[in-house]
Amino acid sequence: MNDVLVSTPGGDYPIHIEAGRLTRIDESVPPNASALVIVTNPTVNRLFGDAVRAALAKTGKPVTTLELPDGEQYKDWQTLNLIFDHMLGLQLDRRAVIVALGGGVIGDMAGFAAAVYMRGIRFIQVPTTLLAQVDSSVGGKTAVNHPLGKNMIGAFYQPIAVEIDTTVLNTLPDREISAGLAEVVKYGLIMDAAFFTWCQTHAEGLRARDPDLLATAIRRSCEFKAKVVSADERESGLRAILNLGHTFGHAIEAGLGYGQWLHGEAVGCGLLLAAALSERTLGLPAEDVQRVESVVKAIGCPTRAPKLLGVDQWMSLMRSDKKAEAGEIKFVLMPEVGQATVGAADSKDVAAVLNEYAV
Amino acid sequence: MNDVLVSTPGGDYPIHIEAGRLTRIDESVPPNASALVIVTNPTVNRLFGDAVRAALAKTGKPVTTLELPDGEQYKDWQTLNLIFDHMLGLQLDRRAVIVALGGGVIGDMAGFAAAVYMRGIRFIQVPTTLLAQVDSSVGGKTAVNHPLGKNMIGAFYQPIAVEIDTTVLNTLPDREISAGLAEVVKYGLIMDAAFFTWCQTHAEGLRARDPDLLATAIRRSCEFKAKVVSADERESGLRAILNLGHTFGHAIEAGLGYGQWLHGEAVGCGLLLAAALSERTLGLPAEDVQRVESVVKAIGCPTRAPKLLGVDQWMSLMRSDKKAEAGEIKFVLMPEVGQATVGAADSKDVAAVLNEYAV
Repeated sequence: MNDVLVSTPGGDYPIHIEAGRLTRIDESVPPNASALVIVTNPTVNRLFGDAVRAALAKTGKPVTTLELPDGEQYKDWQTLNLIFDHMLGLQLDRRAVIVALGGGVIGDMAGFAAAVYMRGIRFIQVPTTLLAQVDSSVGGKTAVNHPLGKNMIGAFYQPIAVEIDTTVLNTLPDREISAGLAEVVKYGLIMDAAFFTWCQTHAEGLRARDPDLLATAIRRSCEFKAKVVSADERESGLRAILNLGHTFGHAIEAGLGYGQWLHGEAVGCGLLLAAALSERTLGLPAEDVQRVESVVKAIGCPTRAPKLLGVDQWMSLMRSDKKAEAGEIKFVLMPEVGQATVGAADSKDVAAVLNEYAV
Repeated sequence: MNDVLVSTPGGDYPIHIEAGRLTRIDESVPPNASALVIVTNPTVNRLFGDAVRAALAKTGKPVTTLELPDGEQYKDWQTLNLIFDHMLGLQLDRRAVIVALGGGVIGDMAGFAAAVYMRGIRFIQVPTTLLAQVDSSVGGKTAVNHPLGKNMIGAFYQPIAVEIDTTVLNTLPDREISAGLAEVVKYGLIMDAAFFTWCQTHAEGLRARDPDLLATAIRRSCEFKAKVVSADERESGLRAILNLGHTFGHAIEAGLGYGQWLHGEAVGCGLLLAAALSERTLGLPAEDVQRVESVVKAIGCPTRAPKLLGVDQWMSLMRSDKKAEAGEIKFVLMPEVGQATVGAADSKDVAAVLNEYAV
């Protein structure tokens, strides 16, 4: 057992990390649950739906499954509403529990549905992508996209448990492994230089899905995330450092259209741009920027960003980021590897970084 | 000054109650607000928009006004989305503050928009109906309706202040005064027999809008509500007693179609049905049921409910109430005037009450 505990003002919850955990998730169902609703997508349902239903059946409670269409482009209100239609159609009450079985899109939507169904019911995160296991399933950020911005409509709403089965990663496409590793590397860059070095040392093995290396990466990532979320659930301060690479990354996703690059791929590339901006702004040594580039490349993420419509479009996209304040773009920057700070940057420096990396 | 303080786990906030308060609501705007968005409807905007804008202009912050269509039938996701479109179109950030200027529909929608815009921003309630002043603006219940049920999608999300100007009631239609008084009477029935007697004594004066009587009724109602909400923000126990009359009332609204009866009218009638059910279930004295009927009538609310499609439809509508658990309808009942409890009722007793009052 490699449990990690997340503490928040609303209460604590466990992250269970085990090979084969899917078959034991009934252990996390509260005794007074009135019904269980598995929210998933067709691909994940085909792979893991039966195992999860078999586990949940052990509770003796009614279990239904709702498939949502797969992909970031469906992470919108219309798709979210399918969850409400399903649950209200079954007249499910406030003691119903949602089981979010899938990657980040499913977790964000099912979690947001739980946050607002009858003003809030309980939910369990069962992340089936590496990215969701190391990042999005932990910490209670839930949301859907709006035509004018990603994750603009949502809530901070914590699950009652996160259930991570490391064996589900065997079926994941290579791109998704790379995308998830970008968030793993991020924790090293913002919080722990030694862990970044560990990622650098083991990049090839992680990308090749060595089970022991992945298990370690997941557990350490959950510990880092739990520590940050416990200190600052609502992103009023510390939590913002988790967005290293995300200001650039969101611009890539929005500029190309959601779904072209995986979120983690955009973040991986964004880590490099953030490092380059940190060199110009905070004097991060050039050799550290090179290290970041070599690790981003080694885990299989892009090291060059799309040009889009040029610097002006980039700036406009970044200005609509949720972290912007009064039109000023906020960046997470590294004074050195293993440390992060949030601040503004000179637009000349940003433009220089874009001219070098967004080609 | 007649301030009332509401305490919740997330922090305290004041209810300011004064004649002329609209002209001083700038006092409640936080210094670090980046922009102010007045969410209102055309009728309220025409009556009070200029006064509110003049007050908010004193802060020196940018102020915009968004009119939503008026009426319960527009309390849906499509209308809610107009708020997001407006704010995202202006690229407003997380420090923007929403000012909900209107009755319960505006307060519920603007509050829910604040709860989920960028995962939560601050908002101020400026209730302009009696019902909103004594009930819906206090306590943080926000929501929109779903085709399958009223207030099914929402959040518990507290305002940073509630601004009650008692002079705005002068322009209110008579029906709205009666509807608001139903919630005032409710507090007496569930919490304070002496206050119920006070309502009975002053029913005519309240209905005739005696300013001193209304000011007292508002302040006492806010005190009652603040007490309950402070003890149980998320309706896990005590708060449910605030729903006296609401199980019947919601069925009336849903059965007739939202907007036919005002919410408060349905609740007023529901108080009588709940009293009648309390007589059969808990032995509430018959003379108390008669007192409730006479007060409901005196404040101008209906004392007979619509028949709808008969008892079966009534039962089905009440079973889809959010308070229902595992298909069992929960009623708030009175063992005696001034006390309330939540429980189930024998369906024969419910049918008998409906046969008597829903005609």
